[in-house]
Amino acid sequence: MATRILVIGAGRSSSSLIRYLIDNASAEDWFIAIGDSNETLAKERAGGNERAEGFAFDALNDERRGKEIERADFVVSMLPARFHILVAKDCIRLKKNVITPSYVTPEMKLLDQEARAAGIIIMNEIGVDPGIDHMSAMEVIHKVQAAGGKMLRFESFTGGLIAPESDDNPWNYKFTWNPRNVVLAGQGSAAQFLQEGAFKYIPYHRLFQRVKPIEIDGVGQFEGYANRDSLKYRSIYGLEDIPTIYRGTLRKAGYSKAWDTFVQLGMTDDSYVMQNSETMTNRDFVNSFLIYAEDRRVEDKIREQFDLSDDVMRKLEFLDLFEPIPVALKNATPAQILQKILETKLELKDGDKDMIVMWHRFNYEVDGQERELHSQLIVIGEDEDYTAMAQTVGLPVAICAKMIINGKIDLKGVQLPTIPEVYKPVMAELEEYGIHFKETEVK
Amino acid sequence: MATRILVIGAGRSSSSLIRYLIDNASAEDWFIAIGDSNETLAKERAGGNERAEGFAFDALNDERRGKEIERADFVVSMLPARFHILVAKDCIRLKKNVITPSYVTPEMKLLDQEARAAGIIIMNEIGVDPGIDHMSAMEVIHKVQAAGGKMLRFESFTGGLIAPESDDNPWNYKFTWNPRNVVLAGQGSAAQFLQEGAFKYIPYHRLFQRVKPIEIDGVGQFEGYANRDSLKYRSIYGLEDIPTIYRGTLRKAGYSKAWDTFVQLGMTDDSYVMQNSETMTNRDFVNSFLIYAEDRRVEDKIREQFDLSDDVMRKLEFLDLFEPIPVALKNATPAQILQKILETKLELKDGDKDMIVMWHRFNYEVDGQERELHSQLIVIGEDEDYTAMAQTVGLPVAICAKMIINGKIDLKGVQLPTIPEVYKPVMAELEEYGIHFKETEVK
Repeated sequence: MATRILVIGAGRSSSSLIRYLIDNASAEDWFIAIGDSNETLAKERAGGNERAEGFAFDALNDERRGKEIERADFVVSMLPARFHILVAKDCIRLKKNVITPSYVTPEMKLLDQEARAAGIIIMNEIGVDPGIDHMSAMEVIHKVQAAGGKMLRFESFTGGLIAPESDDNPWNYKFTWNPRNVVLAGQGSAAQFLQEGAFKYIPYHRLFQRVKPIEIDGVGQFEGYANRDSLKYRSIYGLEDIPTIYRGTLRKAGYSKAWDTFVQLGMTDDSYVMQNSETMTNRDFVNSFLIYAEDRRVEDKIREQFDLSDDVMRKLEFLDLFEPIPVALKNATPAQILQKILETKLELKDGDKDMIVMWHRFNYEVDGQERELHSQLIVIGEDEDYTAMAQTVGLPVAICAKMIINGKIDLKGVQLPTIPEVYKPVMAELEEYGIHFKETEVK
Repeated sequence: MATRILVIGAGRSSSSLIRYLIDNASAEDWFIAIGDSNETLAKERAGGNERAEGFAFDALNDERRGKEIERADFVVSMLPARFHILVAKDCIRLKKNVITPSYVTPEMKLLDQEARAAGIIIMNEIGVDPGIDHMSAMEVIHKVQAAGGKMLRFESFTGGLIAPESDDNPWNYKFTWNPRNVVLAGQGSAAQFLQEGAFKYIPYHRLFQRVKPIEIDGVGQFEGYANRDSLKYRSIYGLEDIPTIYRGTLRKAGYSKAWDTFVQLGMTDDSYVMQNSETMTNRDFVNSFLIYAEDRRVEDKIREQFDLSDDVMRKLEFLDLFEPIPVALKNATPAQILQKILETKLELKDGDKDMIVMWHRFNYEVDGQERELHSQLIVIGEDEDYTAMAQTVGLPVAICAKMIINGKIDLKGVQLPTIPEVYKPVMAELEEYGIHFKETEVK
């Protein structure tokens, strides 16, 4: 009988994953069972293929979930991250291998012994970020270490962006992923990293002011702002003693300066509801955060208060931020209002393509000499369905799933793709799909 | 038999309160029972007076608390605010009048019907802020309204400060109250107020940049930063339609600009532990929040990044912020480290006196004319025990307690001192203790 692969979740990030599985179903003798709360979507993903079926599936129904997992030979969980743990526990009980692209939670980590005892693998963090970032970094780091080198610095940036051919607004940005996450990005405790042996902290309200400029071959000028916690990657990558480690998010140059205006005004705050959101206009919204000055224009007040450049003003004006357009949201937080304003102008249009950019910088010492290596990945989406995001999240999952089923990857317990046994074959096959890093020695 | 007044909590804010009660005990035929978890302190407050006793008292022990309240004729709760509700519920059950200086919580408000049914009063918010602020504001507001006037603007500022004669540091500030609260002041959701009919919001990271300069007769130049929620005072003061309402905290001029440096750096953040707090110096602490620049001094980096004036630099240097003095705190948050550094330099010295300053501005229209009235209170502490804070918190509580016991204030249910029946007699007697507002008509 064919190997039954259960894919739980058929949303945006599952398109390329499912296509890969269906494309390989005959050759590998697989049957792809696609469950999603949205039955139509699940059936669409199956596409009438005789080796696939889509069906309505409530993954939070314990009984139903147990039954589907029991019927399956292998499980791919593409659920929202917090639900993977439910699937993982079923998989231990029912002795099924399982894979998810999401971060390992402390709760998931605790399942390691049980998973080993059950003889199964729970593979995690094998999408794009986390996933391809881990694998591409470990390839270089292990190579350096094998040559007797010592890592001095690791910087890594990833961005989910708009492809150059669809980049037609002054922000050089469109929402290619969850807009809410973009609006709230960076909030919480200070960003933490290490630089030349010194711990450094950047509070949220300075995050977009302390960006690093990065030029990326072929796609131009970018900038990176620090992610929340770069420090944890020391242990994940076996770089406990590295003096400089920094992970960040990439945007096109100029984005952060304009975005910082929102942060400074307090527009990204999601912690309280504005008194009058229902009756306010975009212009009122901006003015709520500015000083009262009867005789002065909103544009003049904001420009003066934050010493805004023409470029930033152009970006803000592009969003109709100063227009008397009704916000039309009841009991909304500043973040919700900002999100709505941004979505109107930064949404993807038909035919727009997205782009994933990843850029690593490695400094290391070998034979008494310091060397620097840059490594970059650029993936452009095929279309609205098979986006760069879906490709880079889904293909590593799919390829790794195949290798686990085939026994080419034969590990037990809670795993990450940071070991050669995983990243080597997966990265090799990703190349066939154009997911390929270009390395440059810097002199 | 003498009326037994139970005072729960003999801490810093109870000194003047207890002195007043003891001073009046003979004339009023009272006996003052003072319970505190610190027995020595409770006995000290009783001072060997025959009409008072101090004893160890665990207010969180339900049985003990019930017994003490049962024995008493009247209860004064000076516990930390969150515990008043326990006392209030006992007082309803045991039919005893009770008074607290703290804010009414929603939970407390819900006890109104029960308190009325039990025939008792639960008087709240009758310290300084809340308390004297309410009473002094309502006196003016009711006077304006009685004359057919219409309130246009209410601004109110209070500060717990250092008296001019003890003001000997460049911050013009010392910790006269809980330092932790000072370090965390203003955090959370944006400050909200109304100006000329427009809702205005100031996020925490801009709070100390948007201060209002205020000159106060006889004590000099101050500045006020906005409190979290000015809007709720509309309903408390019956000013539902007022176009401008703003409440704030007072500091001496120049304080906020320097304090803002801490906020901008991220030093007041209490949400995460710094990696290396145990081994860092004050100077390392500052540098953790600054860019890495091998060849540049911390002083130069901070000065340049925030464009600091000589005055701000002098304030920072006064704190030994740039000295290689060990922080010596394990697993500390930035806020904890900052607090320790500040406490070393801004603590009260022997003989130092504190000062409470309150300043109101009322604009109103009467007979078609706009008028402006300023009202100010300055209270200087007697000494370290009978501080201005203890006087202004404790005396209104004590005076109001007397009037409730005497039947001069005869109300039931959950009450605030915003009605003439309360504020008139209390304010009149406060004058005898030098707690007196000076009013000025502004032309």
